[in-house]
Amino acid sequence: MSDFTLDWEREARTGVAEAVLCEPKTPAQIAAILETAATNGARLLLTRLSPAQHDELPETWRARLDFDALSRTAILGGAPPDPPPDPPIEGALIVAAGTADLGAAREAARTLAFHGHAAPVIADVGVAGLWRLNAQLGRLRDARVLIVAAGMEGALFSVVAGLVAAPVIALPTSVGYGVASGGAAALNAALSSCAPGVMVMNVDNGFGAAAAAIKILGVGRR
Amino acid sequence: MSDFTLDWEREARTGVAEAVLCEPKTPAQIAAILETAATNGARLLLTRLSPAQHDELPETWRARLDFDALSRTAILGGAPPDPPPDPPIEGALIVAAGTADLGAAREAARTLAFHGHAAPVIADVGVAGLWRLNAQLGRLRDARVLIVAAGMEGALFSVVAGLVAAPVIALPTSVGYGVASGGAAALNAALSSCAPGVMVMNVDNGFGAAAAAIKILGVGRR
Amino acid sequence: MSDFTLDWEREARTGVAEAVLCEPKTPAQIAAILETAATNGARLLLTRLSPAQHDELPETWRARLDFDALSRTAILGGAPPDPPPDPPIEGALIVAAGTADLGAAREAARTLAFHGHAAPVIADVGVAGLWRLNAQLGRLRDARVLIVAAGMEGALFSVVAGLVAAPVIALPTSVGYGVASGGAAALNAALSSCAPGVMVMNVDNGFGAAAAAIKILGVGRR
Amino acid sequence: MSDFTLDWEREARTGVAEAVLCEPKTPAQIAAILETAATNGARLLLTRLSPAQHDELPETWRARLDFDALSRTAILGGAPPDPPPDPPIEGALIVAAGTADLGAAREAARTLAFHGHAAPVIADVGVAGLWRLNAQLGRLRDARVLIVAAGMEGALFSVVAGLVAAPVIALPTSVGYGVASGGAAALNAALSSCAPGVMVMNVDNGFGAAAAAIKILGVGRR
Amino acid sequence: MSDFTLDWEREARTGVAEAVLCEPKTPAQIAAILETAATNGARLLLTRLSPAQHDELPETWRARLDFDALSRTAILGGAPPDPPPDPPIEGALIVAAGTADLGAAREAARTLAFHGHAAPVIADVGVAGLWRLNAQLGRLRDARVLIVAAGMEGALFSVVAGLVAAPVIALPTSVGYGVASGGAAALNAALSSCAPGVMVMNVDNGFGAAAAAIKILGVGRR
Amino acid sequence: MSDFTLDWEREARTGVAEAVLCEPKTPAQIAAILETAATNGARLLLTRLSPAQHDELPETWRARLDFDALSRTAILGGAPPDPPPDPPIEGALIVAAGTADLGAAREAARTLAFHGHAAPVIADVGVAGLWRLNAQLGRLRDARVLIVAAGMEGALFSVVAGLVAAPVIALPTSVGYGVASGGAAALNAALSSCAPGVMVMNVDNGFGAAAAAIKILGVGRR
Amino acid sequence: MSDFTLDWEREARTGVAEAVLCEPKTPAQIAAILETAATNGARLLLTRLSPAQHDELPETWRARLDFDALSRTAILGGAPPDPPPDPPIEGALIVAAGTADLGAAREAARTLAFHGHAAPVIADVGVAGLWRLNAQLGRLRDARVLIVAAGMEGALFSVVAGLVAAPVIALPTSVGYGVASGGAAALNAALSSCAPGVMVMNVDNGFGAAAAAIKILGVGRR
Amino acid sequence: MSDFTLDWEREARTGVAEAVLCEPKTPAQIAAILETAATNGARLLLTRLSPAQHDELPETWRARLDFDALSRTAILGGAPPDPPPDPPIEGALIVAAGTADLGAAREAARTLAFHGHAAPVIADVGVAGLWRLNAQLGRLRDARVLIVAAGMEGALFSVVAGLVAAPVIALPTSVGYGVASGGAAALNAALSSCAPGVMVMNVDNGFGAAAAAIKILGVGRR
Repeated sequence: MSDFTLDWEREARTGVAEAVLCEPKTPAQIAAILETAATNGARLLLTRLSPAQHDELPETWRARLDFDALSRTAILGGAPPDPPPDPPIEGALIVAAGTADLGAAREAARTLAFHGHAAPVIADVGVAGLWRLNAQLGRLRDARVLIVAAGMEGALFSVVAGLVAAPVIALPTSVGYGVASGGAAALNAALSSCAPGVMVMNVDNGFGAAAAAIKILGVGRR
Repeated sequence: MSDFTLDWEREARTGVAEAVLCEPKTPAQIAAILETAATNGARLLLTRLSPAQHDELPETWRARLDFDALSRTAILGGAPPDPPPDPPIEGALIVAAGTADLGAAREAARTLAFHGHAAPVIADVGVAGLWRLNAQLGRLRDARVLIVAAGMEGALFSVVAGLVAAPVIALPTSVGYGVASGGAAALNAALSSCAPGVMVMNVDNGFGAAAAAIKILGVGRR
Repeated sequence: MSDFTLDWEREARTGVAEAVLCEPKTPAQIAAILETAATNGARLLLTRLSPAQHDELPETWRARLDFDALSRTAILGGAPPDPPPDPPIEGALIVAAGTADLGAAREAARTLAFHGHAAPVIADVGVAGLWRLNAQLGRLRDARVLIVAAGMEGALFSVVAGLVAAPVIALPTSVGYGVASGGAAALNAALSSCAPGVMVMNVDNGFGAAAAAIKILGVGRR
Repeated sequence: MSDFTLDWEREARTGVAEAVLCEPKTPAQIAAILETAATNGARLLLTRLSPAQHDELPETWRARLDFDALSRTAILGGAPPDPPPDPPIEGALIVAAGTADLGAAREAARTLAFHGHAAPVIADVGVAGLWRLNAQLGRLRDARVLIVAAGMEGALFSVVAGLVAAPVIALPTSVGYGVASGGAAALNAALSSCAPGVMVMNVDNGFGAAAAAIKILGVGRR
Repeated sequence: MSDFTLDWEREARTGVAEAVLCEPKTPAQIAAILETAATNGARLLLTRLSPAQHDELPETWRARLDFDALSRTAILGGAPPDPPPDPPIEGALIVAAGTADLGAAREAARTLAFHGHAAPVIADVGVAGLWRLNAQLGRLRDARVLIVAAGMEGALFSVVAGLVAAPVIALPTSVGYGVASGGAAALNAALSSCAPGVMVMNVDNGFGAAAAAIKILGVGRR
Repeated sequence: MSDFTLDWEREARTGVAEAVLCEPKTPAQIAAILETAATNGARLLLTRLSPAQHDELPETWRARLDFDALSRTAILGGAPPDPPPDPPIEGALIVAAGTADLGAAREAARTLAFHGHAAPVIADVGVAGLWRLNAQLGRLRDARVLIVAAGMEGALFSVVAGLVAAPVIALPTSVGYGVASGGAAALNAALSSCAPGVMVMNVDNGFGAAAAAIKILGVGRR
Repeated sequence: MSDFTLDWEREARTGVAEAVLCEPKTPAQIAAILETAATNGARLLLTRLSPAQHDELPETWRARLDFDALSRTAILGGAPPDPPPDPPIEGALIVAAGTADLGAAREAARTLAFHGHAAPVIADVGVAGLWRLNAQLGRLRDARVLIVAAGMEGALFSVVAGLVAAPVIALPTSVGYGVASGGAAALNAALSSCAPGVMVMNVDNGFGAAAAAIKILGVGRR
Repeated sequence: MSDFTLDWEREARTGVAEAVLCEPKTPAQIAAILETAATNGARLLLTRLSPAQHDELPETWRARLDFDALSRTAILGGAPPDPPPDPPIEGALIVAAGTADLGAAREAARTLAFHGHAAPVIADVGVAGLWRLNAQLGRLRDARVLIVAAGMEGALFSVVAGLVAAPVIALPTSVGYGVASGGAAALNAALSSCAPGVMVMNVDNGFGAAAAAIKILGVGRR
């Protein structure tokens, strides 16, 4: 019996395709899953694939994957296009508090792109210098759904959610040290935000944030 | 100088009106806020108002409030109508794992009603008896957004999110004891769900879950 | 041998007088300490004295104490004056995110007053409605040292510290529930603030925040 | 005096032989224990032996061990047979939520095999796609005892336990990140399951789960 | 629609009847559930029903319930018989480390009795005086399954499990203070026992321990 | 069978008599234990007996107990004498950081007295005013063993242990709030002291600290 | 659009220049930020730059940076001068409990120097040997503001704060193991200090401690 | 100014010489301390010196150190003699639950030897096979003070302390995984032991356990 059973109908059932969480898997397990997907002619998204793991994959698979080291994602079946530089935003917008939050933000952007949604990323708008956020306020208010990626104390979640009417998805990141180590401070800040309705994902779960955004955008299309 | 400054324009700015979190406030502080709201002719939602706190409010205010002990909510300015018994669901649906989760579920339902959204509550569909959930599957798939309230191990979040395409808001509750005490086990289960895109609120934050649902329903109307 | 030894020279040595933390003491212990202070003709500040504890003190002591229930402080030896309503701020300014943070904020204000420093309190300027904070920006920038009291996610610490040059003392409060319960989320947000130099006190430690402010104001006078 | 004292009579006394937990031991310590076992003509099970530790063992011992890298187990004295591909299940059945849980699941399977119990492993039946579990329901109901291995939110424990009458042993795994890191979320979900009677092992303790299953199967034979 | 849906077929499906966890429920909710059960002619087990909650139930229900304050359990439909004083043990045996662990132990005993299994309780055999345990060794070895209830450091779990071949179910209790507060130390001791195969329940979950024992005894009867 | 089995020979075996931890026991359980002890003509020490529990004991037992509310201890069989006011210290000395630590300190003193050891208590020598400790240095250096009771940050453990050659037993207390709540900060400070050899007890475990001191004093007498 | 937006006016606005937290950034991100700073002719402070990260920077940047491995800081635009060996202290003084705390202490000293403040470091004055601290008491009392770096149990914070009138900034370090691992014990000791007014930074946040000291010294100059 | 100040008189003042905790120090710092000690003709004990750190020390120092990899200790100034194989025990005895606890146990033994106390180590007497402990009971009862090293659930602390009259020092070790990871379960078991008077050290603090034992043995000699 095979050791895995891909849930091919998940996209039809829930709107989001199954992705492969690579971190806890061996290279052999990942390669076997790729083999099955390719045999079925399916596109496939791989998440939390470290550069070291990627290096251990057979060369034939590496050649067929669109790998992005910063977000640790790989796509089988053709890379999605980057969003145009300054589009009018009709869908999701991703906001990252600092440069270090870009890994998680890009995981979200790549997942959205994989599902056909171009989503720009606005970076380095942390609350220690509010003017940077104010300069982007127009774009923030145009978005239909926002993903906000922030680590450390996660104050950005509350500030953004107090400024816009669109749904806000908080994506806490593991950026920080001491009590912020591993993202706990940002996660708890998101959960206890004084701005009502902030919706929270697990630490560094850019894939999940994108999946939530895709489902929310689907509400607008029903 | 007054000790509080209500954010009257929050609803215009963010789609959800400011509510008053009563738990950490004294009766005198709550009464003063009610006074200000009434003077402004504003409706007002009060959350986490315990029966004991309610009893300590001046009788004149108690007479003007629509108080619901189970959800610990009170509404100044007229009670919202209950949802009709078995409507076709065009908006939010609230699912509660067990009877004990109804307090949080009703806080969400009352908040939705305060903002003009009727939302039915389906109770006692915990995963230990999956047939109860299966019997409701049609109604679950009709909803545009779901709020799932569950305590203890919170398995219901993942099971529901694997069955529907609509956005799922997880509302962990403090129901449970031992390691589940205070809702931590359910909260962490929601955050680490294997079903992609589950969006999570703080423990017992029915108000926040409703605020999120209102914002999501707004996406469909833009 | 007596069971306590007041550190009468602490004010001379460190700039801040010894105060009596009443929460873990019995009424008999508190009364004995008051007796000693009165015998020495000393003024004395009592903190974390609950109304229930206050009620259990002998009437003779209750009559001699200036007790404030909201801040749970009492002063032996004459109440300090309230700050004038809108003074030019030459010293400390206290900012409270919400009405529920006023208990801790007032403990700080009363401690400052006990040591001869009038400090106004600005309340209800949480980040979910940034306009309320912006309206106070001039006063914030005039202060020589700021104490910021906030519970829940504590985003206010970072936002204020990004706007002013004066030292900012974060006073996390126990306002909140779920993951914010007991003040942990606000405390960790303060410690991991992206705004450099935020100085942090223990949860609800308004006395300590005031002591720190007094020492900082002393730097300006040397 | 020797530094270890194997408990040779443990199997007679408790039904399960002593195994050697290798993780915290040096290669020299492991080799000395193997020497003693071999001298006594005893079979021996080694657990949590990492590939790196295995590589550091003397070649003579590596040659005599049946080592399995995925489960990090090694057996001295002859490898146990694999279970036949699709046997009628008369004993234990092991269910793994995802591919990444197979390490712990195989530790359990190899421990069972060492003690003479063939136990098939069913993989990739996580609750995000319930149809995969439903497809195996017959096999689940045939088993006399089930071991369920799951990480992340651990919803599978409750769902399986609600479907079968046989004892269910929950084996939480360390698969997951953020709040699920190290297996805490799955462990707490197992302990607070709404399905009564779920019995829980420490995170990744496949050996213990198998030991429990062996003891339970022994009840049927008394 | 009713607010609860009892899972009447749970006993047929899983071997253990649904019980009502009363702690998080209001008296009105409990009374409504009793009403439904009585209307269906069903026996019903109530757990974690505090004396204060019991006192708030309508007198008519109190009269029909067999309530046991120490274990906080009540039974609708006739009290089960106590086990005879010194029976030969053919089924489950319950061991309690100290007098204070008897509440959880009796919850297990009453649950077993409700399902038709008489199970004696041996109390006060903590490891600080091992002779007390040794004096009971014969009875321990006769049992087909053991439930061991212990708080504080929970050393008893490992000591008992090292002495018997029958399955051992660890029932950590909330007895203790400081680091043992709430049962965490005993729980973690059970999970990390050096005696292989100890199966662990949530803190104070006597009902669950009994449910597990019932399922294990069922293995012997198939 | 009786529900408890006192370990009468514990004192002979280990040097310290069994005491009864009353907190988790019902008044009926406590009374039954007293009955047994009285029948055996034994003296008995009760710990963590709250005034409320004491009030619920039958009057006949209350009359026979020497109850001390501050330390929550009671002694059956005659109160031990207080230590003389300023003896030369030949045995144990107890040091309490503040007045609020006297409850735990007195539990230790009463336990020592019960076993025949008079031990003076020095109070209010916290490190914020080191001169108070320096004034007692001679007495500290005379003691054969020291028990140091402190809550909050527990700095006193390290300071005392750096000054004396006698064994130092750290007794962390639950005095404090915020991060010090429940004694965790003091406990961890004791465990990670930079002064070598500090031996640590559980929070508020004055009984245990005394038991340790008794055993240490026994070393000097062998 | 660029991935980062330096907050060039932060120093004018808040008194402390923006620094670059390097730990969570890739070498490419760090190099791009350096490029931007150099293009603007700006000096720049880099913190938490590990030797391994430093080695991965392009040689051209390494040549232009003043890198200090012990404090993991680098300065673009010229190294600040070391403080003269024994200056009269007119500003900040840094005290380190042990040699292992020097990394954090030097991060603070280098940050102060970058902003034009020479600050000597006194090392190895832990409380286990109080005479070492007493020998430095004069220098401690001369400082206008003190930074105290300590790990393990952090007793030094309270002892120093009880001796001086100047503001004391506690800088807990991650030095320690077991319960002190990661600095938690020292952090909590600082937060719950019995010496009033201790101001606390996140673990190992020497940069933040210096930023706070700079702001405090600014109070004296207004 | 030098970066360290050895506390040469600590042994005279407290009975235990200062040791150098190497883990958080750089090789350069360690070498400088060795240099100072050698210049003073002092013997010196180094603890938590990893093999990797040892390898990085200059060859001249490595040649002068007696290094023991298992305990990670090194001694400058001549290795202490091993205890004779089976001496009558007149002092300390060290008991280790399993082979994996020998690292901590040997740190204690080497520290005792450095101070002139020979202390045998008895290994592999965990409670899962009590007969191994019973076989050593005579030797246990002869010792004047016992150090018990155990990880995992730490049941051995309570069992040994219930059997002997001598003081028992619990030395929890970091052996274990899952909830026992890092030694927390064993530490908490020691602190909440049902056997009165168990004295507890930080996890893996073999040096501290030995220091405590040395002080206790000193009581017998005064």
